[in-house]
Amino acid sequence: MAVKLSSGKLRGLKMLADNEGKFRMMAIDQRGSLQRMLAKTLKKEPKEVGFKDLATFKKLVVKTLSPYSSATLIDPIYGYPEAAKYFPRNTGLLLATEQTGAESAGKSGKEKKSRLQPGWDISKTKKAGATAVKLLMYYRDDASSDVVQHQKDIILRVGEDCEKYDLPYVLEIVSYPFKDDEEKDNATFAKRKPEIVMAYTKEFSRPEYKVDILKIEFPANLKYCKEFCEGEFDGKKREAVYNLSEVKDYCKQLTNLSSVPWVILSAGVDIEEFLINVELATNNGASGFLGGRAIWKEAAKYYPDLERMEEWLSTSGAENFRRLYEASKNATPYFNHKRFKSMADIELQYGGENWYLDYKSL
Amino acid sequence: MAVKLSSGKLRGLKMLADNEGKFRMMAIDQRGSLQRMLAKTLKKEPKEVGFKDLATFKKLVVKTLSPYSSATLIDPIYGYPEAAKYFPRNTGLLLATEQTGAESAGKSGKEKKSRLQPGWDISKTKKAGATAVKLLMYYRDDASSDVVQHQKDIILRVGEDCEKYDLPYVLEIVSYPFKDDEEKDNATFAKRKPEIVMAYTKEFSRPEYKVDILKIEFPANLKYCKEFCEGEFDGKKREAVYNLSEVKDYCKQLTNLSSVPWVILSAGVDIEEFLINVELATNNGASGFLGGRAIWKEAAKYYPDLERMEEWLSTSGAENFRRLYEASKNATPYFNHKRFKSMADIELQYGGENWYLDYKSL
Repeated sequence: MAVKLSSGKLRGLKMLADNEGKFRMMAIDQRGSLQRMLAKTLKKEPKEVGFKDLATFKKLVVKTLSPYSSATLIDPIYGYPEAAKYFPRNTGLLLATEQTGAESAGKSGKEKKSRLQPGWDISKTKKAGATAVKLLMYYRDDASSDVVQHQKDIILRVGEDCEKYDLPYVLEIVSYPFKDDEEKDNATFAKRKPEIVMAYTKEFSRPEYKVDILKIEFPANLKYCKEFCEGEFDGKKREAVYNLSEVKDYCKQLTNLSSVPWVILSAGVDIEEFLINVELATNNGASGFLGGRAIWKEAAKYYPDLERMEEWLSTSGAENFRRLYEASKNATPYFNHKRFKSMADIELQYGGENWYLDYKSL
Repeated sequence: MAVKLSSGKLRGLKMLADNEGKFRMMAIDQRGSLQRMLAKTLKKEPKEVGFKDLATFKKLVVKTLSPYSSATLIDPIYGYPEAAKYFPRNTGLLLATEQTGAESAGKSGKEKKSRLQPGWDISKTKKAGATAVKLLMYYRDDASSDVVQHQKDIILRVGEDCEKYDLPYVLEIVSYPFKDDEEKDNATFAKRKPEIVMAYTKEFSRPEYKVDILKIEFPANLKYCKEFCEGEFDGKKREAVYNLSEVKDYCKQLTNLSSVPWVILSAGVDIEEFLINVELATNNGASGFLGGRAIWKEAAKYYPDLERMEEWLSTSGAENFRRLYEASKNATPYFNHKRFKSMADIELQYGGENWYLDYKSL
């Protein structure tokens, strides 16, 4: 049975992936986290790091590293306006549509409610010539029901708009600790990670969300994995809550649960850990990566020395990319994902003699 | 002084050109003329050549040759629906927006009034993920004033829509003989060609038409050029109405007149003549070519033997493309055209801190 794809989604998916059909994507849409990184280097308060600093940093990352990516994700506030002309013709353009950060919510105040970026919308994304829309949502399915519903409503709404404007929808989900026994870096939260990631993968695989690519967390914290918990990545010893074989199995389960191609996000981990995440994920069904800080974060140490920054990006940054290509060599091409089976099974929606009539105007 | 380009136009222009900024584009949007070609091969009446034949032919041309082009122009009626999935990620997609043919007009009935394709529009073009809009208009500035105005009105209207939907506007102008002393292949019409092409280039360079690329005829008929009139291209001897030095000068004058990058069209001439057109045009200021039948027309002789057709396209057709790259090696990159001067002089319209607010929704 052929799978029907609309023209804009088909063309967009092709442009997000590379010629092999694998997603080798870079994210430089960080706002709050980049502000904090640059503030640290500049010995300033985050709020003192303004448009010029963020725009300059992002522009240089796009200029030096986006040619290595099949697509680059950027924000329309600080990133795109200055970086626009440095996007190569062959690099897909993903624009972020959420506002940075989140509103604290729930009884504990530790739950998170997201918001779409005021002043920005999917219509502008389409008009600007973007390849796809990316929405980041913080999500825990065991959060308060009003928080869960709030997040789902936004995800549904963006899905509708992506369909209307015929753009691929890349949904990024990031979980967070909010229960009394959870911390970002503790064994309890690490242990719950697999079920948390699997729960949201299952939920947002439902067809009503109209998602085309899931950008998700690695379904385990490798720092709490038996084979890496002796301080492999940061020198700090931790308790083992799973082993490598179990972690591989979580990846396989994600592949089974996800109704659309999925990619792995870097969530601020260092490149060595991200390389292992990418290798494990893509050896077990993921279609590639959308990596941000893992690729370029060390460049922030050199800001505002643009010359040294560029030197780092065009050598070590490029080498990070090369290693990520290697680590993702077994990624599943999107057209071989079970949603499509093969390129031969993909057909244009409303294709044939009446396509130009049946395909509706915006 | 920097030149401001909107996001969609900037991204679209980049994708129409290759990495050098040169337009190496292919046209497979022919409808009436392709119907006649296939009818001849199939020994049928043109009207007996239907959707399936046109769609199959076009799909095979896109599949084999569009990977060689920086962008491929196709129609949304017979071409795109079946060819969509064969467009490579790196090939720009130009969609034709006019109806094929023209209504006969003027006192003699030899003038031409064009029409936009019913059921199709720029909104659909944008939604489908096209890189740019192409409008073909038949035009003589010395036609009846109502015909001239009718054509100008359409050209203006499409310019407005391209601005609204933020897509590059490729305007193709084709002249035609309509006066008593003119025939498609006579010395009078050949002699008038330079002034006809220069007149419309000047007219549609005016900013109110909002054109981004002019796709125009070679400003002379080389078969009536002293150096080629002894039957060089088709064995038929003709009168010389200009010499090569004058022809080069016409190209230079076009470059001076055109306020936007211009490309040369192939208008059904054979590949040998088109190669010389392209070389002369691009040595004298043109930014490339948008060639159709000259590249692939011989394949029509093999239809419906798809295997032989594909064999011809992937060998001789590909060789035609290779020779066109060579012939256009001196093409002016679009960003070096006087409209822009250099990539460094191009800036994003409304760029900077408020871009995401100032850039309007569709």
